[in-house]
Amino acid sequence: MIKVSVLYPNAAGVRFDLDYYCDTHMALVRECLGAACKGIAVDHGLAGGAPGEPAPFVAVGHLLFDSLEAFQQAFAPHAERIMGDLPNFTNATPVLQISEVCLS
Amino acid sequence: MIKVSVLYPNAAGVRFDLDYYCDTHMALVRECLGAACKGIAVDHGLAGGAPGEPAPFVAVGHLLFDSLEAFQQAFAPHAERIMGDLPNFTNATPVLQISEVCLS
Repeated sequence: MIKVSVLYPNAAGVRFDLDYYCDTHMALVRECLGAACKGIAVDHGLAGGAPGEPAPFVAVGHLLFDSLEAFQQAFAPHAERIMGDLPNFTNATPVLQISEVCLS
Repeated sequence: MIKVSVLYPNAAGVRFDLDYYCDTHMALVRECLGAACKGIAVDHGLAGGAPGEPAPFVAVGHLLFDSLEAFQQAFAPHAERIMGDLPNFTNATPVLQISEVCLS
């Protein structure tokens, strides 16, 4: 199983509308990716490792696919529409991590 | 639900023994944290967002807890033992992200 994680870095002045992200943006992602997307998860950053330290990421979205090819085929035709929705909930530039799920 | 994510940054010269991490280290984590830890997952970084770009993180471990307090109480007495195992599988300094699971 392949996990595509979209990490939104935390920083001074970062704007992130968590409700919009979980509800509206993820509904768009679901509609675009269809059955190829096997699961969606959202983490909301609360804290870092040291006392009082902010979370390194304000939010992280995770999408599951059977394979890298399945992700690429599902995402490519909708990339522009999905990425074009980002300014509606954040001014952060996300970091993308594609992983193999080893343990879950 | 609280997710504690331990992100191991990728970099030139990084060493990471994925088998040891998944098997030996996570067995130690399970033993130390006991029933407070509601779930364990491991992602192995494959790629970044751009073609040919390496994964930002060589691996990410996720631990689930009912609350921040449950994590802190379970982890504190074993922190030294768990952190002391890191040199056995990596030379990376992990980044810690504590999140609330909003969608799963």
